[in-house]
Amino acid sequence: MNEHETLEVIGKPYPKKDARIKVTGECPFGGDIQVPGMLHGKMLRSPHAHARILSIDTSKAEKLKGVRAVVTGKDFPGILYGNFMHTRDYLPLAIDRVRYMGEEVAAVAADDEDTAWEALNLIDVEYEPLPAVFHHEEAMKEGAPLIYDDKPGNISCRSVWEFGDIEKGFSESYLIKEDTYRTQPIKHGMLETHTCIGFWDANDKITLESCKQSPYVVWRQLAMGLGVPPHNVRMKQTFVGAGNSGGKQEAMPMDFASVMLSRKTGRPVKIVHTMKEVLTIGHMRHPFKIDLKIGVDKEGIIKAVDCYAIADGGAHTSIGQLSIYLLGAFFMAAYKIPNVRYQGYRIYTNKSWPGALRGHCAPQSRFAFEGLLDDIANELGLDHFEIRKRNAITPGYEGPNGFKITSCGFKEALDKAKEVSGWDKKKGKLPKYRGIGLGAAGFATGANIMGMSACSALLKVQEDATVALQSGATDVGQGCDTVLPMIVAEVLGIEPDDVSFALVDSDYTPIDGGTWGSRVTFYAGNAVKVAALDARKQLAQVAAEILKAKEDDLVFKKKKVFLRGNSDKSIELDRLIRHCQNRKGMTIMGRGYYNAPAEIPDHITGKGNFTPTYSFYVQVCEVEVDPETGQVEILNMWTAHDGGREINPMLVRGQLLGAALMHQGQALFEGLIRDDKGRTLNPSFLDYKMATSMDIPARQEFYSMEMPDPEGPFGAKEAGEGSGTPTLAAIANALYDAVGVRFTELPIIPEKIYRAMNKKG
Amino acid sequence: MNEHETLEVIGKPYPKKDARIKVTGECPFGGDIQVPGMLHGKMLRSPHAHARILSIDTSKAEKLKGVRAVVTGKDFPGILYGNFMHTRDYLPLAIDRVRYMGEEVAAVAADDEDTAWEALNLIDVEYEPLPAVFHHEEAMKEGAPLIYDDKPGNISCRSVWEFGDIEKGFSESYLIKEDTYRTQPIKHGMLETHTCIGFWDANDKITLESCKQSPYVVWRQLAMGLGVPPHNVRMKQTFVGAGNSGGKQEAMPMDFASVMLSRKTGRPVKIVHTMKEVLTIGHMRHPFKIDLKIGVDKEGIIKAVDCYAIADGGAHTSIGQLSIYLLGAFFMAAYKIPNVRYQGYRIYTNKSWPGALRGHCAPQSRFAFEGLLDDIANELGLDHFEIRKRNAITPGYEGPNGFKITSCGFKEALDKAKEVSGWDKKKGKLPKYRGIGLGAAGFATGANIMGMSACSALLKVQEDATVALQSGATDVGQGCDTVLPMIVAEVLGIEPDDVSFALVDSDYTPIDGGTWGSRVTFYAGNAVKVAALDARKQLAQVAAEILKAKEDDLVFKKKKVFLRGNSDKSIELDRLIRHCQNRKGMTIMGRGYYNAPAEIPDHITGKGNFTPTYSFYVQVCEVEVDPETGQVEILNMWTAHDGGREINPMLVRGQLLGAALMHQGQALFEGLIRDDKGRTLNPSFLDYKMATSMDIPARQEFYSMEMPDPEGPFGAKEAGEGSGTPTLAAIANALYDAVGVRFTELPIIPEKIYRAMNKKG
Repeated sequence: MNEHETLEVIGKPYPKKDARIKVTGECPFGGDIQVPGMLHGKMLRSPHAHARILSIDTSKAEKLKGVRAVVTGKDFPGILYGNFMHTRDYLPLAIDRVRYMGEEVAAVAADDEDTAWEALNLIDVEYEPLPAVFHHEEAMKEGAPLIYDDKPGNISCRSVWEFGDIEKGFSESYLIKEDTYRTQPIKHGMLETHTCIGFWDANDKITLESCKQSPYVVWRQLAMGLGVPPHNVRMKQTFVGAGNSGGKQEAMPMDFASVMLSRKTGRPVKIVHTMKEVLTIGHMRHPFKIDLKIGVDKEGIIKAVDCYAIADGGAHTSIGQLSIYLLGAFFMAAYKIPNVRYQGYRIYTNKSWPGALRGHCAPQSRFAFEGLLDDIANELGLDHFEIRKRNAITPGYEGPNGFKITSCGFKEALDKAKEVSGWDKKKGKLPKYRGIGLGAAGFATGANIMGMSACSALLKVQEDATVALQSGATDVGQGCDTVLPMIVAEVLGIEPDDVSFALVDSDYTPIDGGTWGSRVTFYAGNAVKVAALDARKQLAQVAAEILKAKEDDLVFKKKKVFLRGNSDKSIELDRLIRHCQNRKGMTIMGRGYYNAPAEIPDHITGKGNFTPTYSFYVQVCEVEVDPETGQVEILNMWTAHDGGREINPMLVRGQLLGAALMHQGQALFEGLIRDDKGRTLNPSFLDYKMATSMDIPARQEFYSMEMPDPEGPFGAKEAGEGSGTPTLAAIANALYDAVGVRFTELPIIPEKIYRAMNKKG
Repeated sequence: MNEHETLEVIGKPYPKKDARIKVTGECPFGGDIQVPGMLHGKMLRSPHAHARILSIDTSKAEKLKGVRAVVTGKDFPGILYGNFMHTRDYLPLAIDRVRYMGEEVAAVAADDEDTAWEALNLIDVEYEPLPAVFHHEEAMKEGAPLIYDDKPGNISCRSVWEFGDIEKGFSESYLIKEDTYRTQPIKHGMLETHTCIGFWDANDKITLESCKQSPYVVWRQLAMGLGVPPHNVRMKQTFVGAGNSGGKQEAMPMDFASVMLSRKTGRPVKIVHTMKEVLTIGHMRHPFKIDLKIGVDKEGIIKAVDCYAIADGGAHTSIGQLSIYLLGAFFMAAYKIPNVRYQGYRIYTNKSWPGALRGHCAPQSRFAFEGLLDDIANELGLDHFEIRKRNAITPGYEGPNGFKITSCGFKEALDKAKEVSGWDKKKGKLPKYRGIGLGAAGFATGANIMGMSACSALLKVQEDATVALQSGATDVGQGCDTVLPMIVAEVLGIEPDDVSFALVDSDYTPIDGGTWGSRVTFYAGNAVKVAALDARKQLAQVAAEILKAKEDDLVFKKKKVFLRGNSDKSIELDRLIRHCQNRKGMTIMGRGYYNAPAEIPDHITGKGNFTPTYSFYVQVCEVEVDPETGQVEILNMWTAHDGGREINPMLVRGQLLGAALMHQGQALFEGLIRDDKGRTLNPSFLDYKMATSMDIPARQEFYSMEMPDPEGPFGAKEAGEGSGTPTLAAIANALYDAVGVRFTELPIIPEKIYRAMNKKG
């Protein structure tokens, strides 16, 4: 059967499964969970950005009435945990050294939160302050304080590569331009703070219930840091009050503290972070300084690119090896670049640290590249769309670094964006202080970063023609609780409402890479499809007997199984399932896993295809600047994208809008501010300004190229996250058009615009 | 590979997985569960044994401060639910009629339990009392009050059959004896009372968290009574504080009340029964009046059996169609009976009702049969073992009703029991007031009673060479939390501690018949084995590649995979799993289901083989009676049984002992006492006396024949529950030997013995 012949479910706007329970407030987030006998934990944090811990005296705290236990780093086996093996630098709690202001040095479990807070004040920690360094450019310098003794130059990790012949590329260039771009740290801004409940039982089974987006990542990290096999850990996911790609990805000191406090007390221990804590500690988006040089020929064809980028890595590496790779990789995912050099360094500083965040280094990468490309186009007198179209990646293209393009509607998206934005009528013809600009990006559908990145699914078919589906994917707002059931529904000919989707629980749900990097629809979707086909095959065998037909001739649709071309010869699906159960003693279960065909690239040397398929985004932004104040209004935003076939256009729309909106904040006003001692100055949502629904542009339009990907489930690939990746560039380029100033440093706040306009004017 | 060649795990005494957390008190039973926003519910019960409900006024109760909602029967759709289609007679709450004192007519949800109790007093129910009937013999009579208008003769259900030619059988008999036996009601006596937390969410998903032994039975019944598809119900099992075969099998009014109160309030509602409530309502063991006639030839060979049995069915049928079938069926499972008639009637009365309880009608059946057989042997001058051996079922035997015997060590067990008990030295030679007696029984390994009785398992293999196993089986103390992991461990060459076993949750765990009728080790064990083999096959394919060997030549043992006969050519299991995950992108998951090859018998006509294999029990009891008080001391108890191969002999031992002990209570002192208005007189553990660990006989020995069953997993079949089935008979027969009195009515309390001895003396 050609699976795409007539789709009943795929492509329809089914409402998100958790919408009602979230609106009614019934949805139990991490903070809502109560467990009998539960204690409350709080974390003691370092007041120093860099110091040696000479001693910790917990005796006074332990004597406080209501305090049940105190733990410090010495209660743990001292094993570093983390992601890539060569970059593991997390300890459950600091042992002899703290490296940023806010680092966890001890934790208390008490009968109530107030007592726990009070007890923190009674813990005496003797520190010997050490010289600290707060800026990545400073930290690289000879003689800068070393944050890790074994990391010379404070280099947390690097990606350094050259493909093609860069000297030759530049020597053949007609025009070479270079510039330096700087981006700021921004936070995930999830409304639900980190929460966990840990319990260490008499069987040494360690249960952590928490709002994690990739529970199996945490499962492994928790086992790693505790020095136990993963089997001893049970990771239970609660509903997640947003993760935003990376915010709730990893095991955290609070997780370790809660289970160790539980071990000491024999009781479950719940720890809930305040928003101040969330905004003070990691993770966040990597701030970058990007020195970019592009050489083109007379026609604007890119001949060579050279980039030197350093990221402020804060006190820990997190997933930073991937981040520093990705900044360079995302140069290679939009345009054909024959010769390229990338030198990316992630530098330790004495601050809270960055990790993954929606778009994961693509926005910063595109901000620099698309800005410089516009400058080149301007100098060549080329239309901004034209220069992109000339360089655009095409289907079947193989990059010099090993990127392999399969489906690709980049040029189609460029044409569409140009058309719908009325580019030709507007470009250069808008009134003063109004401008139009363009950004483009290629984005990834998951990444093969480490092993164990396959997705898995198990499902059981129930006698009312319904399915209980479990996978290792989590819904962090992005919609897989609805999209994955839609895939099951399509395969089995039932409705999405007939398919339940379970939260991850490592004692039940299959091992899976989890939710990050826009991989779920593609990876988990394919795994779920395999599982559904596995179940369908079992049903089809029996149906074929009953209908005296060949399995391959059977169609599953509208809760019936019938012969292709003869829907009279049919059996109701629920009757078929009951027949299997009652007459045949069968229980229909499906299992499936999927891993992408791409190889695991070398993140240090950059060689290899890091994602199974690429998606493409073109965004046009029209802005108006108030000359009196420098205030920017986004009048219009058009996004044309090739995200494969949309499984659920309504949910894709929500993701497209959300991702673009988030980057409006980064472009124009958002940012975590630390002073020159590493202290966070705006750790509250009163002072930390994000884009909200009030900032959605008056007009915003989305266009999907709807070109099915050959490998994706029903033709789907990444669709959503990538929408934010050209936004910084589109806005900056539109501002250039409006006021004639190239802003290379984010955020482009009104003051900056006002000053630049007046300086210029 | 011959799976039995060398077993590493099977047959070893692994401690029960939940032992530690139960001993430390960490194990969360139903009553321990707390949910945010939870209300507390209580049930209003009928003070009448039989009455019409004229009106229910809940307005005063609703106005009480702290009361959040009140529900009555009219809040439900009025759909009868239950087990067999023709015997469904439960309503969630009574609507217009109550049929026993204690029947639920309304329920209240309040902020706390006290308020809920108080509110019950404010509900005005206007009743019109109806004539009631309390004894099954009375209830059958012409003119007795009808408890259900459409059930003439108050017959709840029946099993009536004749196989062979009973007239001919008796006419060929040399000796015919008959007698009437009566058994009392006993309760399950589980220490954890019924508990549930219901939640009806905004998506109309109905979650019931409860200590059920067969969650999928409740899943279906809840859906049935609520008039929703099963998919709308999520059934989550908590740890179960004992079920004792039937006590926590079904959906109960409290379950319906909690979810409907939740629907009205939008909050979770918890209901916990008091022990008084547990002992006042159903379920319990069926009380029987059994008229039994047996004809034998001169050699004691059974020629014909005729039985007329009526059970006091109380106000509801529960699983009674199976019960009434089983009393007759269990006559046919020990001895060869060529001609048989059975007329079994289950009669409604205005009392709380019986259902399944450990042994499920086999003990009553054997009590009568084994007593009468002893009387016959005595009259023929035959040794009690001898008459049993002459009639004993043998391997390959097919009963006239369709029973098919496969593995059978009955004769071996008879020989063993005779030998170890020193029968020949004791029988007729013991001092005065001491006696030795014998009981025998055949028992079942699950029953094919309805469709959907297959068991299912899903498992996932983890990279530390461990497994997370889920099935639909529940551990209610019998040990499947350990036995099922042992089966996985044996198949995959790992340790039982490497396998976790999850509680049932219908959003995750596969559909399964649940835990009842001694089916789990056999049915679920086979399903688990299929799932483990499924996973092993996937691993073996990869291992074969790596080791350059044939899959079939690979052995999985001691966490390695190696070539049979060449253990040097091997790979560590965890390395193999990591290789699959990291290099092949595989996630190893196994699925399996199993249904017994036996057909579903007709429970009304008795035709068919109701269980896939039979187990056999021979029990010898030595007693001493105190002539001053009639007090009985059990000096010795020997049990020889053919229960196939024991997967975990230590756990089998515990079950054998527990089942026998429970029946000591029924034999000698236990019983629920109702007065002539249907009121329960001893609804507390102060007044309701059960056998406890203090009653374990001074000496107790168990002998397993260890004859592997051909169909059971690793040769296992039922082993445990059956140990209680000959106990009533063994004790009564020993008492006959001690004091020369045939007691035909239970319990045989000291007063009865004393009076009989003195009457006789």
